Amino acid sequence: MKPVRDLAEAIQVVFEDMQSHLGAGRVADYIPALARVDPRNFAIAAADCDGHVHTAGEAATPFSIQSISKVFTLTLALEQMGADLWRRVGREPSGSRFNSMVRLEQEHGIPRNPLINAGALVVSDALMTEGDPAATIDRIAGFLRRLSRDEGVDIDPEVARSEGETGFVNASLANFIKASHNLNNDVAKVLEVYFHQCALRMSCAQLARAGLYLAADGVDPWTCERITTSVRARRINAIMMTCGHYDASGEFAFRVGLPGKSGVGGGILAIAPRRASIAVWSPGLNPAGTSHVGALALERLAQLMDWSVF
Amino acid sequence: MKPVRDLAEAIQVVFEDMQSHLGAGRVADYIPALARVDPRNFAIAAADCDGHVHTAGEAATPFSIQSISKVFTLTLALEQMGADLWRRVGREPSGSRFNSMVRLEQEHGIPRNPLINAGALVVSDALMTEGDPAATIDRIAGFLRRLSRDEGVDIDPEVARSEGETGFVNASLANFIKASHNLNNDVAKVLEVYFHQCALRMSCAQLARAGLYLAADGVDPWTCERITTSVRARRINAIMMTCGHYDASGEFAFRVGLPGKSGVGGGILAIAPRRASIAVWSPGLNPAGTSHVGALALERLAQLMDWSVF
Amino acid sequence: MKPVRDLAEAIQVVFEDMQSHLGAGRVADYIPALARVDPRNFAIAAADCDGHVHTAGEAATPFSIQSISKVFTLTLALEQMGADLWRRVGREPSGSRFNSMVRLEQEHGIPRNPLINAGALVVSDALMTEGDPAATIDRIAGFLRRLSRDEGVDIDPEVARSEGETGFVNASLANFIKASHNLNNDVAKVLEVYFHQCALRMSCAQLARAGLYLAADGVDPWTCERITTSVRARRINAIMMTCGHYDASGEFAFRVGLPGKSGVGGGILAIAPRRASIAVWSPGLNPAGTSHVGALALERLAQLMDWSVF
Amino acid sequence: MKPVRDLAEAIQVVFEDMQSHLGAGRVADYIPALARVDPRNFAIAAADCDGHVHTAGEAATPFSIQSISKVFTLTLALEQMGADLWRRVGREPSGSRFNSMVRLEQEHGIPRNPLINAGALVVSDALMTEGDPAATIDRIAGFLRRLSRDEGVDIDPEVARSEGETGFVNASLANFIKASHNLNNDVAKVLEVYFHQCALRMSCAQLARAGLYLAADGVDPWTCERITTSVRARRINAIMMTCGHYDASGEFAFRVGLPGKSGVGGGILAIAPRRASIAVWSPGLNPAGTSHVGALALERLAQLMDWSVF
Repeated sequence: MKPVRDLAEAIQVVFEDMQSHLGAGRVADYIPALARVDPRNFAIAAADCDGHVHTAGEAATPFSIQSISKVFTLTLALEQMGADLWRRVGREPSGSRFNSMVRLEQEHGIPRNPLINAGALVVSDALMTEGDPAATIDRIAGFLRRLSRDEGVDIDPEVARSEGETGFVNASLANFIKASHNLNNDVAKVLEVYFHQCALRMSCAQLARAGLYLAADGVDPWTCERITTSVRARRINAIMMTCGHYDASGEFAFRVGLPGKSGVGGGILAIAPRRASIAVWSPGLNPAGTSHVGALALERLAQLMDWSVF
Repeated sequence: MKPVRDLAEAIQVVFEDMQSHLGAGRVADYIPALARVDPRNFAIAAADCDGHVHTAGEAATPFSIQSISKVFTLTLALEQMGADLWRRVGREPSGSRFNSMVRLEQEHGIPRNPLINAGALVVSDALMTEGDPAATIDRIAGFLRRLSRDEGVDIDPEVARSEGETGFVNASLANFIKASHNLNNDVAKVLEVYFHQCALRMSCAQLARAGLYLAADGVDPWTCERITTSVRARRINAIMMTCGHYDASGEFAFRVGLPGKSGVGGGILAIAPRRASIAVWSPGLNPAGTSHVGALALERLAQLMDWSVF
Repeated sequence: MKPVRDLAEAIQVVFEDMQSHLGAGRVADYIPALARVDPRNFAIAAADCDGHVHTAGEAATPFSIQSISKVFTLTLALEQMGADLWRRVGREPSGSRFNSMVRLEQEHGIPRNPLINAGALVVSDALMTEGDPAATIDRIAGFLRRLSRDEGVDIDPEVARSEGETGFVNASLANFIKASHNLNNDVAKVLEVYFHQCALRMSCAQLARAGLYLAADGVDPWTCERITTSVRARRINAIMMTCGHYDASGEFAFRVGLPGKSGVGGGILAIAPRRASIAVWSPGLNPAGTSHVGALALERLAQLMDWSVF
Repeated sequence: MKPVRDLAEAIQVVFEDMQSHLGAGRVADYIPALARVDPRNFAIAAADCDGHVHTAGEAATPFSIQSISKVFTLTLALEQMGADLWRRVGREPSGSRFNSMVRLEQEHGIPRNPLINAGALVVSDALMTEGDPAATIDRIAGFLRRLSRDEGVDIDPEVARSEGETGFVNASLANFIKASHNLNNDVAKVLEVYFHQCALRMSCAQLARAGLYLAADGVDPWTCERITTSVRARRINAIMMTCGHYDASGEFAFRVGLPGKSGVGGGILAIAPRRASIAVWSPGLNPAGTSHVGALALERLAQLMDWSVF
């Protein structure tokens, strides 16, 4: 099979190929706002370095990006404190579920990486330098608006509230990290920031646009604005590759061959370095908590475009 | 800093840059043949897709490739049994040391991936279809001779014997896997194959040459011989990226940005897809069991050549 | 050596023997009220079934009984809900530290036994049937006053407050149990009860008197009041024997041979079935968190009186 | 219900009560010699300190005592090397299955206690001072003959052979301990001793007689021969209480209230200090690997005789 080399065409092929899979997987139901999403939703958007966004499906419909936000808060934290961040969080795959306590206890409150919940809590804490959750949440939302060039990006207050009401495992993690002296702020404030960043709502089109700096060595290729250094952009990609899908990160690297980060809202952000930033959305999850159809779509697109980094 | 784009020049720069680091790290001393290696040895060889091998240092001196052999036995096993292999071994990072029992018990004898010892034991067993260790060892050695186009590649009998005499952790792993019904052959035979493959002796020049098919979608680019399918070659690279350095795989991806596999003999094989296969050797190890200077050299070379896949 | 059979004499011998050990061990310093206790304090009291309390040292000085309270809340919970309690908490030694998360995660929020922190949190929750922490705390304190026949038993508000301010590991455990649907009440309320029961202040004389029902098949032998059934009293002793000292329970059984429960305030309650209830207090702890001199004193007393159950 | 105080009568009551339970549980089937035992077998024997053995059921039929042998090899090892043994093995409950690797790895090859497989392997090694498995096996068998005053006690060669052929988990444990430098002899020799001690065949009458020294402070009460010191006898009982039934030790203490040790052959030895040594046999096991009917019978007997140590 000859690869399709035209991105617009490939996006269409993927869209059509996915029709027979729609509805597969299991929609997250731990909070009402996620549980009531139609499992047959599907969207894909690829922003390339030349200034185009190619889309198919409901690419303008906002969804809860959940853990995908961890990529952006990591970027912000690295810009703010540089390599000092790595004294508080590691960069190794955890080999465990996204919210596992075991690793955290064995490693004395230093989370394995910034893309599991424990690590993202430390990042949230690191961003809150003034002890003000609302200001920190505004800063994160503002960063996403800037990256996506879209003032419409916002936080879903119902989701944030629900996360707070049901987030006992995250509260357990945060308290454990606090006990290990790896949170500077109050546990409740850190959780407030964390639950709000998880409640960011973005469409695939916005999300693909927002991730473009990671495909272009840290520079927004459409505006030439530098978002982070080249080294940091690549290292964030490296962490996405080894840690972006919890204990199914190896599987995603094996099948798709691109750095990526999934969220339980059914979104995935993937980066084809020097090529494009791609966002997919389909709410049904596989047992590891990654969008089932979303991962299939990315595997297909990477194959059609010959985008695997390997 | 402008990247050096000429590979020969870059190899020289790396060689010079490493001089001040020689002797750093700790030489493996669990068997005499490794313990007596001079810690100041250093070699680098990069085989490119155009038919050149660029070298510096003692690139013709053979060393014990140890766990690097796992990449090649994985290739052989995939050629032999295809995706059936994945019923017996996973492809996720383990988040644990190279020889950890814990994961294995938790996961009922299915090793996390084929690049940790437990996984490589399963691969060794899978290769021994006739129950004959000597024939299987010959087949593995023959594969390396074919890949490196060098009949001089051989197994160090002293190393193989020493591994057998001191390999109690590997014997523990193999017996546990046998108890979990995931070895077909006798434990002693599987260990014999495993200890011999670890005792393969190759120079950096030979090893770089041997790995070239992984940089070229499964085809030896000098002879156009297909070694494995394109998909398998890329997937082996993906596994090297996420699992190639035990519980320091994230660190290697973060710093070097290339798929790689290290051995306790001080060698590392790294793949720059579509560019080159690189072998380095320096016996001093970091605490994770990877060559300290070797990893530095690869980080430097990837930077000079702008070879990070991210 | 012929055993001393007179309890009053034995208590004196123990008191004298301990003089050379006073000050050994490390005083708990995670909260100020514990940290400032003089490490050279020592007290012992043995209440026998015939109506006598024999004491030596500062046996009338109240100290923070901390985890010893778990024995009494367990008794209350068994009286309230009977064997249903065992659906929410196990009765096996944990083989882990008193506050370990690992076991809890592996066993899905069912704590291993009611004498580790996680188990005691479940017991606290079970006692709070009306959702009212203050009433539950009153009930627990009232039970201790009744058992010790002393209205002076009370809760130290400073200790309760300090526990709340520093109790992040307990908050982590409680949130994890809540996430596992094994707490009926709000996490904050459960922690309030738990921190207050840990802050109970009692003297050795009061504590020995309070534990007497466990030495007498569930009946207070001085008043003939039944506190719990005979079977429950013995089973509580069995749990104290196998689980009373966290991951040093085996050591205590091995050396002392009596059911016991220690607290980080330096107290230990031990039961010599059909003979006596013994309380000791010495603030310096061994690495497992049990009073160093207290354990020595109990070992000596058990030996002098030939009280080992084995 | 008034307790039966006559042991002969109690044994009869237990025997009759157990009739309705016969056949419950699951017979061990990992080796043929165990798998073919009739699950409806039942025997009980209680040897008292006055020179009587009371029996019911097939108390003269020999069965494979399996792990019950660990109590006797522990006694021998303590006689041989005293407290030095505790440098090589702990005395804490493991909180894990009988053959778990996890604990062993976490604790660097020092088994948690001598009654789990890993600990018993260390004890077997400690007994083999001359490096001669056959002599060590003879010594163990001879000790059991001496204790039971019966030259008929012997080792079942078929069971020993089967254990060797299927004992991969034990081989895994032994190799791991060897790697941790906690075995002096060859792994194969240690396993040979261990598999033979597990293959000891004894009847309930022989076994009850053999355990009597543990009920009498280390002295055989019928012959006044001292088998071990009083302190050691009591400490062995303490270890049986906290560790005798793997991760169901707490349950046995809770229900029966006596030190005991079970074997997968369906036997249990229990000690009523100062009263009697009791052996039961019924091949069906509960999920923790203890005889289901055997444990019920001991619970009933302890209740009828009021023998709980608590």
